[in-house]
Amino acid sequence: MPIESKAIFLKQPPLGTPTTSDFEIKPEQLDDPAQGQVLVENIYMSVDPYMRGRMRFMKSGDRLFGGAVGRIIASRNAAFNEGSLVLNQNSWREHFLSDGSGLQLIEPDLAPLSTYLGIMGMPGLTAWGGLLKTGEYKPGETLFVSAASGAVGSVVGQIARIKGGIAIGSAGSDEKVSQLINEFGFSHAFNYKTQEPLSELRQAAPEGIDVYFENVGGKQLEAALTHMRAFGRIPICGMIAHYNDHDTATPGPRNLSETIYKFITLRGFVVSAFEEHKHQFQEEMGDWIRSGEMKYQETIFEGIDKAPEAFIGLFNGTNQGKMLVKLANE
Amino acid sequence: MPIESKAIFLKQPPLGTPTTSDFEIKPEQLDDPAQGQVLVENIYMSVDPYMRGRMRFMKSGDRLFGGAVGRIIASRNAAFNEGSLVLNQNSWREHFLSDGSGLQLIEPDLAPLSTYLGIMGMPGLTAWGGLLKTGEYKPGETLFVSAASGAVGSVVGQIARIKGGIAIGSAGSDEKVSQLINEFGFSHAFNYKTQEPLSELRQAAPEGIDVYFENVGGKQLEAALTHMRAFGRIPICGMIAHYNDHDTATPGPRNLSETIYKFITLRGFVVSAFEEHKHQFQEEMGDWIRSGEMKYQETIFEGIDKAPEAFIGLFNGTNQGKMLVKLANE
Repeated sequence: MPIESKAIFLKQPPLGTPTTSDFEIKPEQLDDPAQGQVLVENIYMSVDPYMRGRMRFMKSGDRLFGGAVGRIIASRNAAFNEGSLVLNQNSWREHFLSDGSGLQLIEPDLAPLSTYLGIMGMPGLTAWGGLLKTGEYKPGETLFVSAASGAVGSVVGQIARIKGGIAIGSAGSDEKVSQLINEFGFSHAFNYKTQEPLSELRQAAPEGIDVYFENVGGKQLEAALTHMRAFGRIPICGMIAHYNDHDTATPGPRNLSETIYKFITLRGFVVSAFEEHKHQFQEEMGDWIRSGEMKYQETIFEGIDKAPEAFIGLFNGTNQGKMLVKLANE
Repeated sequence: MPIESKAIFLKQPPLGTPTTSDFEIKPEQLDDPAQGQVLVENIYMSVDPYMRGRMRFMKSGDRLFGGAVGRIIASRNAAFNEGSLVLNQNSWREHFLSDGSGLQLIEPDLAPLSTYLGIMGMPGLTAWGGLLKTGEYKPGETLFVSAASGAVGSVVGQIARIKGGIAIGSAGSDEKVSQLINEFGFSHAFNYKTQEPLSELRQAAPEGIDVYFENVGGKQLEAALTHMRAFGRIPICGMIAHYNDHDTATPGPRNLSETIYKFITLRGFVVSAFEEHKHQFQEEMGDWIRSGEMKYQETIFEGIDKAPEAFIGLFNGTNQGKMLVKLANE
């Protein structure tokens, strides 16, 4: 029995900040799944800043897409049972048909469903893998993370705290600095726009830092190199690439020779490197979420009609933490 | 029976390029070794550019020192037999007494004695460890090394060649470039002062480079990052620190974000990191020297009276390869 659904299309590529008139919501009718197909009802969808960049390469009438979690409501594919929950890349619509490719089953007992689009998902895995695998962070070590109030940075700092270490974070406003200390439990935080990174690090960690989780380059990277201990590690996080589409190249650190006598390692990574560790990650992160040790924030808009507003809100600071749209009941 | 010897002292710290009048050769008489002591006759001593920097912190009348190889000619220390050969830091003199601390026994069958001050010594170990340990170079990979005609760089390139890889080197004159290809067997070499590093790398290694042995920073480091393959490695060599005393900080690479999607590792090191591998290094290097696969050049001045001239010659290009002074017959 065919169902009525709604989906959102790009009416025109936005000029500057997107407005609701750049989007068009259309009804669509979906057939019952054919042999080998499943029908999915999306429950949460994610809106992310990187989608703005992508719109520059789209044209009027194109269908929007991105991360979502949904429930299988009809299945003619033996790999998926009705009622199973799946992560997918078919957001901006209420329902979709799929042959199962690109669907990842979710274990709903580990953590709330919505977190699979945030700390149980790609940003969380980026933080976990970048800190523990690429950065080889060991319990008790001193960590510095820039862009610390972001989806990745806030998790990086909390993992260090949970593992008994000292977490130092930087952010771009005094409100964010307070949040780092009061909500996410950082030992020390500073506003990089008004404070000197090197003197902040010296004050917060007189004996130096062991790992710097690099998100921004520039003066903060130089300060980290200068104040790093022997055998320090600097994982260079791939998430920044999403946000830097319009930036010119940042000047490199002038003190790379600090690496020599301190045997410092810098290493780039993107989240795909940790695919093989995903299960271990989700078990650990699920434990931390259920115990309350790992904090996170979500801003949730209700109903697909609100998806354009939620997306636009990313660019004027409407959201606290991860921005989501709820499309159906859990 | 006391012996007559000669030693060289600093007459005055040099102003600008050193001259022979900055040095003073004095006779001295050495007693027979006391209980626990040995008497060493130096056979070769090394002169090195870093000694010039050190002289800025010395005063008139100070004794000069540095790397030498010598023979035990009298021993009252059970750890050292007469006739044994030892690496020591007591150069700029013909003989010295020692309680044995700081003396390292040399295996004279592995390679010519003089090479223990060059490719069998610190520069060789720096090259071997930096490439194979820090750089994790694997047989057949494509290597790029800057300052390739130097004591370290020329060994780095040859190890890659011996291990079946492609060695690309840069140097600061056309003569050095010819030498890299004709004498040291590099696959490709270029003059970084007249050629564009990135286009040279693209031409010499269309599929990219696996390891860049970093000696200089600047444009060559940027070119290496841009043209590096996935999972590439950049060992950052500590030898540069010796030569850069007067330099201002080099601008850092503006394209450090190249590390991210290519999972590139940069790692600093100094030769002390490889102390535990020294025996393995000397066995391998000795094999390569005896088989003729590993080439090296030496310029040897005869007699301690010529040591100041040899040292001064470092600063006007008198030497081909390692500069040594021979103080006694082998």
